[in-house]
Amino acid sequence: MAEKKIGLHTVKLKNPPSILSTATIVGPKEGQGPLKDYFDIILEDDLFGEKSWEKAESKMLREAVRLAMNKINLTPDKVDYFFAGDLLNQIISSSFAARELGIPFFGLYGACSTLTESMSLAAMMIDGGFADITIAATSSHFSSAERQFRFPLEHGNQRPPTSQWTVTGAGAVILGKEGNGPYVTYITTGRVVDFGITDANNMGAAMAPAAADTILRHLKDTGFNAADYDLIMTGDLAKIGMEIAVDIIKQNGYDISSKFTDAGIEIFDLSTQDVHAGGSGCGCSAAVFAGYLYSQFMSGNLNRIMIVSTGALLSPTSTQQGESIPGIAHAITIERSVGI
Amino acid sequence: MAEKKIGLHTVKLKNPPSILSTATIVGPKEGQGPLKDYFDIILEDDLFGEKSWEKAESKMLREAVRLAMNKINLTPDKVDYFFAGDLLNQIISSSFAARELGIPFFGLYGACSTLTESMSLAAMMIDGGFADITIAATSSHFSSAERQFRFPLEHGNQRPPTSQWTVTGAGAVILGKEGNGPYVTYITTGRVVDFGITDANNMGAAMAPAAADTILRHLKDTGFNAADYDLIMTGDLAKIGMEIAVDIIKQNGYDISSKFTDAGIEIFDLSTQDVHAGGSGCGCSAAVFAGYLYSQFMSGNLNRIMIVSTGALLSPTSTQQGESIPGIAHAITIERSVGI
Repeated sequence: MAEKKIGLHTVKLKNPPSILSTATIVGPKEGQGPLKDYFDIILEDDLFGEKSWEKAESKMLREAVRLAMNKINLTPDKVDYFFAGDLLNQIISSSFAARELGIPFFGLYGACSTLTESMSLAAMMIDGGFADITIAATSSHFSSAERQFRFPLEHGNQRPPTSQWTVTGAGAVILGKEGNGPYVTYITTGRVVDFGITDANNMGAAMAPAAADTILRHLKDTGFNAADYDLIMTGDLAKIGMEIAVDIIKQNGYDISSKFTDAGIEIFDLSTQDVHAGGSGCGCSAAVFAGYLYSQFMSGNLNRIMIVSTGALLSPTSTQQGESIPGIAHAITIERSVGI
Repeated sequence: MAEKKIGLHTVKLKNPPSILSTATIVGPKEGQGPLKDYFDIILEDDLFGEKSWEKAESKMLREAVRLAMNKINLTPDKVDYFFAGDLLNQIISSSFAARELGIPFFGLYGACSTLTESMSLAAMMIDGGFADITIAATSSHFSSAERQFRFPLEHGNQRPPTSQWTVTGAGAVILGKEGNGPYVTYITTGRVVDFGITDANNMGAAMAPAAADTILRHLKDTGFNAADYDLIMTGDLAKIGMEIAVDIIKQNGYDISSKFTDAGIEIFDLSTQDVHAGGSGCGCSAAVFAGYLYSQFMSGNLNRIMIVSTGALLSPTSTQQGESIPGIAHAITIERSVGI
């Protein structure tokens, strides 16, 4: 059996890569939320000086990567691989950012699971001996997502209470072979799970079974339980999906409710910010992790967490053709120190 | 430096994974082309018994994977990771195939570079010690691609001579830690390169600089030249892009013309099949490699080849917003035997 496999679907990294730097850029609404002090840049205008929201999103992703590199005086030629994806058709935010950066690039599509999808691969490339430094990044933008997946904003359509608000935000995480932590230590890769939800305005419910599947496989594979973690954060099930996930996990013998949160709940104040069930989008768990949670590691408030970014793998075409919404969730464990 | 890195951007696998099995499914037009004897299944109807071309494409991808598994009596529970992507928005062909297979899944978007993008990652996961068996797969479908990227087929639009014909086809490649070859031995990962081409009907020209960039970096990193290869196959530059790539490479001191071909040229008979500059689509290099070239390894006619799948990273939105077309190309070396 492959030396780093434990259990069925989890790998334990042998020489856990260290996070060297992160950066986040968010939109005005996110900059008014409870985590506003943890983002590097808060845009005053979500066009970010560009002529379209799509160009603005690509610029956010590119600038988040540049900022993360600048923080540690890293130049693109020292980076072995860039892993990125986003929600836009043909992941143009990522591709156009990769064009400017010139780093060997693996384009990903995992919908809102992209943060942990990209970090999983970026970490394994280092632990596998293929790279010294890698970057994982992702973005989303409320306005570009709305017009691509739902309606033109000018349409002013009503949003049901189950709907989520796509975060305008980008996060970049730089990983290195050598570093002082926090470290990526375990990876449990998602399977596509579909419980037959067909309502594109209830994506939290569509993704919850996938999140539960991955968390349960992780706990079984590693022998950990909720007590082993300071925090287990999904992203982005929001209010409704979160409750469903906790229930499924409880039915399978694990109670994680005391340690569980969701990036879509953390990034907005649900009582005042009119985001209905909470935030969503690739940029949501990226901004919460690369901004808030990373800072909590650096200030010694966290020792071990699991991030489980969740994606709804629908397209407008698949929905029109009557398909239900498959979900996927990739889990990674991050620890302040290793080798003890 | 990471132990498997050679040169700037190439890795040399330490324990090269073996290809264990491949399978291909193609459409009726591809089944009339010069490689018709090398495909496992040739569809009589490109709807493949489904109600939409998108569903048909997803079924092709899924059935190609199943067929490749059946050939070696492999069940999905023995597969560690599934890497796949396609051209459809939100890669629904791949996601829905992954839903049926239940294998931990990394969704990719590399446009027509997906064969070698997925094989690169699938191979590195094994060599890195994370997996025993992985699957790389991709698909494309003329009819689903036309209506998504260009015009509804009912529109009957004219195609300029530089245009390429999206292959209806899917290919799956199963890689394993143990096997009798051929083996994946070197990987050179693509950077996004953009020479400012804005004509979405001339994608070969848009991708040629990326192909040249990757091939040149590979040759410099490894010290190889054309004589070290039986064949260097891009996919899919087609007639016009191929000439441009050969020229750029020649200007940089390497003459690969005697060993060079392109999957878009191989899969169709350009003189009789009315495909203009040649084939394209993720399924093109996938079908040519997993069908024809794999059989040539098995019958001992090939010893060492390089496959360089090339992707045009445009979207209809980026084109409408005046962006040029960035390209990317991922190269992998495949050898009949290793360790001599």
